[in-house]
Amino acid sequence: MTKIFDVLTIRNPSKGEAFLEQISGKTPIFVLTIATSETGKIAGISAAGKMPEITDYTPPADAELLLFGKCKCFNGVPVTPDGIPTPALISMSALRLADFPVLVASGGLRVKPHAPFLDFGGSPGRDIRTGNAVDNVKEVIERAKVAGAHLAKTSDYLVIGESIPGGTTTALGVLSAMGVKAEGKVSSSMPINPHDLKIKAVQAGLTAAGAVFGSFASDPIKAVSCVGDPMMAAFAGLVLGAAEQVPVLMAGGTQMTAVLAVVKALNADVLCNVAIGTTRWVAKDCSSDICGIVDQIADVPILAANLNFGNSRFDGLKAYEQGVVKEGVGAGGSSIAAMTKFEGALTKDLLLSEVERNYATLMGLKL
Amino acid sequence: MTKIFDVLTIRNPSKGEAFLEQISGKTPIFVLTIATSETGKIAGISAAGKMPEITDYTPPADAELLLFGKCKCFNGVPVTPDGIPTPALISMSALRLADFPVLVASGGLRVKPHAPFLDFGGSPGRDIRTGNAVDNVKEVIERAKVAGAHLAKTSDYLVIGESIPGGTTTALGVLSAMGVKAEGKVSSSMPINPHDLKIKAVQAGLTAAGAVFGSFASDPIKAVSCVGDPMMAAFAGLVLGAAEQVPVLMAGGTQMTAVLAVVKALNADVLCNVAIGTTRWVAKDCSSDICGIVDQIADVPILAANLNFGNSRFDGLKAYEQGVVKEGVGAGGSSIAAMTKFEGALTKDLLLSEVERNYATLMGLKL
Repeated sequence: MTKIFDVLTIRNPSKGEAFLEQISGKTPIFVLTIATSETGKIAGISAAGKMPEITDYTPPADAELLLFGKCKCFNGVPVTPDGIPTPALISMSALRLADFPVLVASGGLRVKPHAPFLDFGGSPGRDIRTGNAVDNVKEVIERAKVAGAHLAKTSDYLVIGESIPGGTTTALGVLSAMGVKAEGKVSSSMPINPHDLKIKAVQAGLTAAGAVFGSFASDPIKAVSCVGDPMMAAFAGLVLGAAEQVPVLMAGGTQMTAVLAVVKALNADVLCNVAIGTTRWVAKDCSSDICGIVDQIADVPILAANLNFGNSRFDGLKAYEQGVVKEGVGAGGSSIAAMTKFEGALTKDLLLSEVERNYATLMGLKL
Repeated sequence: MTKIFDVLTIRNPSKGEAFLEQISGKTPIFVLTIATSETGKIAGISAAGKMPEITDYTPPADAELLLFGKCKCFNGVPVTPDGIPTPALISMSALRLADFPVLVASGGLRVKPHAPFLDFGGSPGRDIRTGNAVDNVKEVIERAKVAGAHLAKTSDYLVIGESIPGGTTTALGVLSAMGVKAEGKVSSSMPINPHDLKIKAVQAGLTAAGAVFGSFASDPIKAVSCVGDPMMAAFAGLVLGAAEQVPVLMAGGTQMTAVLAVVKALNADVLCNVAIGTTRWVAKDCSSDICGIVDQIADVPILAANLNFGNSRFDGLKAYEQGVVKEGVGAGGSSIAAMTKFEGALTKDLLLSEVERNYATLMGLKL
């Protein structure tokens, strides 16, 4: 593991450094891919478990935060039941400091953002235990691919993030369906990772789909359709379209590995242009293993923003060091992109100051 | 009037030349703003009059043509009842030759394209004779403005086009509501311009809205809401957001003047970054007067792609010289942008060859 600026290269350091050099000083488009699913409402699976219907509002609220600097579909910012703020706060801070262009793309939403968004014809996801979780996967991928190809023409590179509750469970679903061993390896936004609940949901989904581990190893469309979520189709399509032309930083935690498996199965050639960008909190998480999953899929580098909120003046941010939230809304990838844009002049500490400033403003707190 | 490359400067030549110099060699994003309305279905108003329901399919088909090189929501390409092909064929040819990035934005659609598009929360338009033609205008403008601002961060400049049937009637509506004399001055896609029908529809709309000529001179939101169309809200918002940062070429015919009036009323400061880009067919049209309308609004330059299809080997294209179609789908603006990108190396004749090639391919004809 080497460190460049405040970015850690946690897998394949030489490729990781080459990727960082390629994007150094450059300006990406940041695309936030949002979607909702009933899987996120399974009791105990997502941090928003006590109020399942709130999971329909989190992705659009995250999108509004990035585009308008405040949420429009409700007051304040999305928080966990313990009051820990959405990682969109980190993304928003990084993206605004670097003045990066931001677009929002929908994979399928129950609640639409009060903001412009790219529509790829997707629908909200069903509970994966039905074994029939996502509609129209092939068409959504095709439309997202065209959008990705056109966005690539207009920027040095793309950073693509996600916001979907329950996303690590559906990631486990798709990875399992495609024959990647990920039980006990996917991350969680909660301090105690409910691996058993996720495994049970995935098992139920595979059974309902008449499938077992590895059944859809060469059919990613079917894997996502049965036990995935609508974010994956949109995200994979964007990567497939853009990475033919420019570098793509897939910004997220273990959810990215499921998208990676889908992309590889559809066009492995583009992977030479792909890196995963996450946070130190995912990289150091003992209850998940992003490298252990990626090792089974493709030799892409993993980068991690070396964020540390231990010295924050706000308990809500300090809590990130206790393993809550960890990642989401492209927090790690947007931080990496912003720090790389300024070639080190934007440090993790300056970024934390900006996160604190935005947090205080949005929550009505004193700095 | 001067001529640079194969572009005519038909209003304010010095500003027009300065604009061309500014965009010379540069790469824009092309945004096609599509919408549908019941106004386009009034008998005799639009070229698609005999089959009004087809007007719901034309804008999405145009969008598909630009993004996929073929229509997906029906076979072939949109044509007038006489078989004259959509001007999207010109835009597609210019955009592909120059390899420009293309995005589609919806103002409000009855039929969605089988293609990615930006959603601003708009709805299809009603018949302006109701005096209550468009919902949610303010919100759509705000969302489009944010999108325009972010797109401006990622490109040298923007070219924005439109596709909406019945658009010159709603243009007359908004211009009249805002106190701009446009009766007999708006263009038509038909050889014989049905001015009387348009004037009658606008009069009925204004009366139904309890308004007269000039009632909404300082309330563009109300003007569009009562007697406009949903394309205008999306288009105006994009201009307002983008032109604060980069040049914007408003690609269209007399419809652009209504958008110009809306933009001016909301933020006249951005107009220094704005030009209208149209075709020679609009510029030389005796049955309309784009300069005469713009003269009443703002001192922006008007450029015209010096296209001439008189020597085409295809009757469907030759017909453009008889005054059918004339403009639409940003045909003029995208031609100007492509010719300017190549600083003259792409001539109008090379462009016609490419249009012919694409026309032959799509219609199954021999070159």
